[in-house]
Amino acid sequence: MIFSNLKLNSNEPIYYQIEKHIKKTIENGILSSNSKLPATRELSKIIGVSRNSVITAYENLELEGVVYTIKGKGTFVTDKNIALKGEWNIEWEKKSNEYADLSCYLDTVKSEIPWERGMISFKSISPDGELFDVEEFKKAFLNRIALEGHKILNYGYAQGYKPLIDYLHLYMNKKGVNTDNKDFIITNGFTEGLQLILSSYTNAGDNILCENPTHNTSIKLMKLHKLNLIGVDIAEDGIDLMELEYKLKNNQIKIGYLTPSYNNPTGIVINGEKRFKIYNLFKQYNVPIIEDGFNEELHYNNSHIAPLAAFDGKNNGVIYIGSFSKILFPGIRVGWVLADKKIVDTLESVKRCYNIHTSFLDQAILYEYLRSGAFEKQIKRTRKYYKEKHDFAIKCLDKYLKPKYIWGEYGMHVYIAIEGIDSRKLLQKCYERKVIFAPGDIFDVNNEKTDTLRLGLSRITMEEIEEGIRIISECVDELKIQ
Amino acid sequence: MIFSNLKLNSNEPIYYQIEKHIKKTIENGILSSNSKLPATRELSKIIGVSRNSVITAYENLELEGVVYTIKGKGTFVTDKNIALKGEWNIEWEKKSNEYADLSCYLDTVKSEIPWERGMISFKSISPDGELFDVEEFKKAFLNRIALEGHKILNYGYAQGYKPLIDYLHLYMNKKGVNTDNKDFIITNGFTEGLQLILSSYTNAGDNILCENPTHNTSIKLMKLHKLNLIGVDIAEDGIDLMELEYKLKNNQIKIGYLTPSYNNPTGIVINGEKRFKIYNLFKQYNVPIIEDGFNEELHYNNSHIAPLAAFDGKNNGVIYIGSFSKILFPGIRVGWVLADKKIVDTLESVKRCYNIHTSFLDQAILYEYLRSGAFEKQIKRTRKYYKEKHDFAIKCLDKYLKPKYIWGEYGMHVYIAIEGIDSRKLLQKCYERKVIFAPGDIFDVNNEKTDTLRLGLSRITMEEIEEGIRIISECVDELKIQ
Repeated sequence: MIFSNLKLNSNEPIYYQIEKHIKKTIENGILSSNSKLPATRELSKIIGVSRNSVITAYENLELEGVVYTIKGKGTFVTDKNIALKGEWNIEWEKKSNEYADLSCYLDTVKSEIPWERGMISFKSISPDGELFDVEEFKKAFLNRIALEGHKILNYGYAQGYKPLIDYLHLYMNKKGVNTDNKDFIITNGFTEGLQLILSSYTNAGDNILCENPTHNTSIKLMKLHKLNLIGVDIAEDGIDLMELEYKLKNNQIKIGYLTPSYNNPTGIVINGEKRFKIYNLFKQYNVPIIEDGFNEELHYNNSHIAPLAAFDGKNNGVIYIGSFSKILFPGIRVGWVLADKKIVDTLESVKRCYNIHTSFLDQAILYEYLRSGAFEKQIKRTRKYYKEKHDFAIKCLDKYLKPKYIWGEYGMHVYIAIEGIDSRKLLQKCYERKVIFAPGDIFDVNNEKTDTLRLGLSRITMEEIEEGIRIISECVDELKIQ
Repeated sequence: MIFSNLKLNSNEPIYYQIEKHIKKTIENGILSSNSKLPATRELSKIIGVSRNSVITAYENLELEGVVYTIKGKGTFVTDKNIALKGEWNIEWEKKSNEYADLSCYLDTVKSEIPWERGMISFKSISPDGELFDVEEFKKAFLNRIALEGHKILNYGYAQGYKPLIDYLHLYMNKKGVNTDNKDFIITNGFTEGLQLILSSYTNAGDNILCENPTHNTSIKLMKLHKLNLIGVDIAEDGIDLMELEYKLKNNQIKIGYLTPSYNNPTGIVINGEKRFKIYNLFKQYNVPIIEDGFNEELHYNNSHIAPLAAFDGKNNGVIYIGSFSKILFPGIRVGWVLADKKIVDTLESVKRCYNIHTSFLDQAILYEYLRSGAFEKQIKRTRKYYKEKHDFAIKCLDKYLKPKYIWGEYGMHVYIAIEGIDSRKLLQKCYERKVIFAPGDIFDVNNEKTDTLRLGLSRITMEEIEEGIRIISECVDELKIQ
């Protein structure tokens, strides 16, 4: 009897389990075309369920074309079960286009060494979740939801949640940025901001100038848009001005991408005077700037350094991308672009094609959190927390590794160079000892081998920092002997 | 004295107001290059603030290159204030690329008649926010945040929040869909789902087959990807099978896009038997299907009709896009794609380039809301609410307008045709009487004039429905006389 091996569970609706069982029996060839199913009354007795469940199952199967009913005769298996039986296999791996293939090729997440239990991972620079003030976040949620729950859970606008935009105007004004002829669009984090800009204002083959090394996600996106990356080397105080001018002069540069406030991976913060010179060079050569405000909030001393956008005044040469994702709550994916109103108007249409708008709930909570004052408290706590780790890491580096140089003043990572070492080979060796980090080549615009590495500190303990650096230094010694 | 007109407010930090004032004075030419600023102690007395505020202001101005300090002499205005003075104006309107221009061109939100106070708008089909169960939503939030606040506020994964994905497996299984060789990726709503698929699996010039009329956002995205839209006409029971087969046979169709469960704008629901035939036609001609599960949950009767994806069994010919945005909370932008694992793997890399991942907070709340049982209650309430409006609208249409036909069984809108009327001209006339609706041409794959209109009912009252339809019918009469 084909129903004797049907074991009912309590997780799924009964009718659904019956449906599944019958389909399976047909698929296995046990119930063949035009064979008759038991009457509903009969079957309900056999398996001990209500007759309604059996009726629903039969009805659904009929709607799906699996069975047919002849009045007064019963229910039968159709012979048009080609859909269930005949295979239809599309070779999707051959169907993706160039864009998708390039996205996969550039997706280092899939090729990198994955984290494993027991590892000391210096790879991550995502914030330590324990630093999040969940209680204040909860309050912010409850406040907003009480005030306008029905509104923020419904469709919003592509440009973003108005109170948050108003807040950001003031926020950027305080950084010295004139926002009079500019506007904001809220994005799903920094990544979407850069993606929107590159999608809208660059074409394949355009020259884009950037620091070398620079943020690996940005390199990925620039390459995805088939831009020609023109890297300018970095020294201890940031981008090399001579080389910058030379390259601005001698190349048709479409746009520049810069991270003056906190270069990733090096952690270098460019001082105000140099920023002024950089801005003026771009202005002189009429090359607009995409300024990545990455981690601007994390500087340990309280006095801000004006972003390039501040020098832009009422001009429109700087497109600024901001995000709190390294301090606040990256899981909610809220960032912004501040730019000339015409740019924002264009990005708004493109954004609407991407995903209509960024979560209004998330924008509203973030707004409430920012205005409550919880943000300032969190910045202070976060700075202190990372500063301790950073100072300790430098102490350990001096003790065990004595690198050629250590760069970066602030933040959640250090960037070091080790004389005569290929950092990829070092990573292989360290991996055997369960220590991993980010090798310099992933931040190099040409993915060239380097003697540098980035050590992310945000999510590991002091003990792990010391132990990890000790192991790296032992691996360096081994490599040097070989 | 240049500081006599400085009026301090209590909203902005003092140092920032001093900075602004000095910059303005320089911009106005009142303070010229190399002129000396008052000593910090002196200025603090003049304007009656702490000396620290003045020091901070001067320091920031120096960092920005606006002033320079000579030890023992004082602080002076630099002569390199070209950045503040010399204009730099980039003509951004000429810089956008073809993709951005096309996005703007296709962005009907910007060209449509906007809503004005006092209007009766049949335009919207976004849900009525008053139907949202904000209390249950709040509970869902509090539960999740208590359980894993630190986790869901931190970075997540491109594929999505695991418990939600597991839930969706079961959810789709209950609809009769075999998900064994398939997987999910969570997207920022339906729009991002379709955008990801088209970005990854189509090329400019590809033929895409779809119902005509169909969802205007989908038309926009297909045109943005420069696809060649091959429309198949719709009759009262959905897509015309003869025409479908003819077009599948005689065109190199790359992929089909179908909305069997709730065609937008018509509201037509295709029955199970016809779905089976549609599926098999696509299978026969080896053309994969993108199935838009739009509003599947809103059917008034409780028995589900299996989606095309259910007929696909263990095949991989159907890519299903789902969203709860018309029932639950569109403001949080959570949808999904269910497809062959290879497809999901590719979309994951593309998604990571777009925005890393969809808000983990929103996914977690939605998951909690769904599993709590609140979803089922909301579906029932929503169905009842819209059914009443729908029934009433049909009564009013019969009474006042007597259209050529009324289509659609369920949901938040009705679709009607009016003999001998150009719906654009009708809209113009109705607009003068403060009634607006969606004219049929925006859902036509060739944007051709039609005698059809979609009346969205979700956000207007019964009184407005009757009054609006009465006005439309008067405008129709006027047009017929002219």
